[in-house]
Amino acid sequence: MSFKVLGKCPVTGARRGVLTTPHGKIDTPVFMPVGTRASVKAMLPDELATLNAEIILGNTYHLFLKPGMEIIARAGGLHRFMGWERPILTDSGGFQVFSLAPLREITETGVYFASHIDGSRFFLGPKESMTIQRTLGSDIVMAFDECTPYPADYAAAEKSMRQTARWETVSRDCKLCDGQQLFGIVQGSVYKDLRQESAAGLVALDFDGYAIGGLSVGEPEEVMFEVLDWTVPSLPEDKPRYLMGVGTPRQLVEAVARGVDMFDCVLPTRLARHGSAYVSDGTTIPVKAGRYSADFTPIDENCACYCCRNFTKAYVRHLLNVGEISGLRLLTIHNLYYFLNLMRRIREALENDAFAEFRANCFYRI
Amino acid sequence: MSFKVLGKCPVTGARRGVLTTPHGKIDTPVFMPVGTRASVKAMLPDELATLNAEIILGNTYHLFLKPGMEIIARAGGLHRFMGWERPILTDSGGFQVFSLAPLREITETGVYFASHIDGSRFFLGPKESMTIQRTLGSDIVMAFDECTPYPADYAAAEKSMRQTARWETVSRDCKLCDGQQLFGIVQGSVYKDLRQESAAGLVALDFDGYAIGGLSVGEPEEVMFEVLDWTVPSLPEDKPRYLMGVGTPRQLVEAVARGVDMFDCVLPTRLARHGSAYVSDGTTIPVKAGRYSADFTPIDENCACYCCRNFTKAYVRHLLNVGEISGLRLLTIHNLYYFLNLMRRIREALENDAFAEFRANCFYRI
Repeated sequence: MSFKVLGKCPVTGARRGVLTTPHGKIDTPVFMPVGTRASVKAMLPDELATLNAEIILGNTYHLFLKPGMEIIARAGGLHRFMGWERPILTDSGGFQVFSLAPLREITETGVYFASHIDGSRFFLGPKESMTIQRTLGSDIVMAFDECTPYPADYAAAEKSMRQTARWETVSRDCKLCDGQQLFGIVQGSVYKDLRQESAAGLVALDFDGYAIGGLSVGEPEEVMFEVLDWTVPSLPEDKPRYLMGVGTPRQLVEAVARGVDMFDCVLPTRLARHGSAYVSDGTTIPVKAGRYSADFTPIDENCACYCCRNFTKAYVRHLLNVGEISGLRLLTIHNLYYFLNLMRRIREALENDAFAEFRANCFYRI
Repeated sequence: MSFKVLGKCPVTGARRGVLTTPHGKIDTPVFMPVGTRASVKAMLPDELATLNAEIILGNTYHLFLKPGMEIIARAGGLHRFMGWERPILTDSGGFQVFSLAPLREITETGVYFASHIDGSRFFLGPKESMTIQRTLGSDIVMAFDECTPYPADYAAAEKSMRQTARWETVSRDCKLCDGQQLFGIVQGSVYKDLRQESAAGLVALDFDGYAIGGLSVGEPEEVMFEVLDWTVPSLPEDKPRYLMGVGTPRQLVEAVARGVDMFDCVLPTRLARHGSAYVSDGTTIPVKAGRYSADFTPIDENCACYCCRNFTKAYVRHLLNVGEISGLRLLTIHNLYYFLNLMRRIREALENDAFAEFRANCFYRI
């Protein structure tokens, strides 16, 4: 077994685990920084390692378009291409095909689509996605799914979930490289029976791990938590659970409490580029705002990141104000540290049987 | 004496020296990365220290406009504001007032100008420039000068040089902070007698160092070298000589051969942002070009920078091609390493009495 549950919270559904991959072990619960186009935006691999990022995510759709699979294959896979020696999870491309690409035509074997970059035509289905992810050489491969849009009425959600189920069955039958693990993705929108049917179907296929997709797509936060409450109990105890594309710091803690082990989200890197920094109450402050122009304190007095140890809000605000790249770099470092450190604190709390208390107190106003 | 010549080339005019400042020693010949707006573009202070940058340059004009002197003063000076603990040289602002600001009116006491950012009106003269640089707390302060445009006829060059001479006299009489060194700037365009008159006038004022300004402003390279041949012999042996805004790798070596000790230039950082990387023959290659898309060799096989040790042209080209910040970061690291390492090799050659041979062979095609 590549996944091992090391301990469970006595109060909530949270667990502490370790996932073994060809490129190393991952301590869970874990947050995966997003490296869409073979780069976590504004970061270099050695900085990610310094921040103790144990795994990053790559996007199949973007890498398939640029630089394309021939380049990645000749480079010897995504790890070698981008100089990242730790584990990588790649998504299936399905989400981006459905959210970014225009001119889609969906067939039983996959999706015809136009590149959002130059309009050229491509086809992506479960077989193609598995072939691409085999070439990428990711440690964790995601089955090809359709991310059901929100809101979807019951009939549409059911049809979409069934399509996903068939594509995931095809994905499961594809050959991967030695050591590559394949995760299935639960869909079913906000409908309990569809989520449970989706989960049961995937469990029957015995995936190496189970993702929960189609959340954080516009639904209220309570609905997201409710879907987790319905779905997680349908998944095996001994396999990792991955909540895709989530979320805010509070959502991470709440999802961990519901038994989720893995997360990815663009929030820390994207908000950094928009000039916002995460602070102790779990929200962000707009460091670019004029009110910080003479604030000579760090973004967070209690933060041990490179930015907070060395620079003031006034300096970062100046850099953002004049458009210096260093400004968004410092916020990216801070925000990623914030997310990765939050997960470290969650793991520590779990190890000390103190997660329930941590959950109640981890976000506070200074 | 804060400057000491440690040794001289037996063949050329090159010398190896050390300049002592309140923030540490600088080994000369030295290249100073440009940190216009309190940031060397795309770099953070710890990376510059890793590259062995011993001193950086800040721009008075830009810092005066943003964040403004009140912020810098309250931060405790430029070093503390930007978290850089090594030496800083600041220019006088004269060059930018004459090259960037619209609506100028020149008077005997200085220049009225409009900010290039928002059009608000300011006045900058020698007294104001010295006050600003005292607030910045730079280790090396530049006297206020007019950078004579190129081409300038003799009468215009003479008038401009005389104006500079009067402003530099005023600059010399201003009070600086303990430890701050003041450098005069030789002007006189491409006219031998004007350059020599300018130099003689400055030497009589006994500056801590002497800069050669008004070069690399459009004149042919041979003219630049000719001006150096005329000017350097008029400057004292025991004071540092700084060639402002220069230059290409070949120009650095040639200027060192003519007795120059200090340089600053935006070329390594600017060309990085344009997708170009310096290589062994002293020129650049356009890494962004499609012909590198499947080139799995480093930018320079012999380069020991972080970029060349870890990444291929194909990867850097991909990052530049899709607009990832990491791409220009890697090229900035490479180009700054190239310039700083070139200076290190120059110093090493001087220490080994081998500079003349180094000068003849340092740029080669692989």
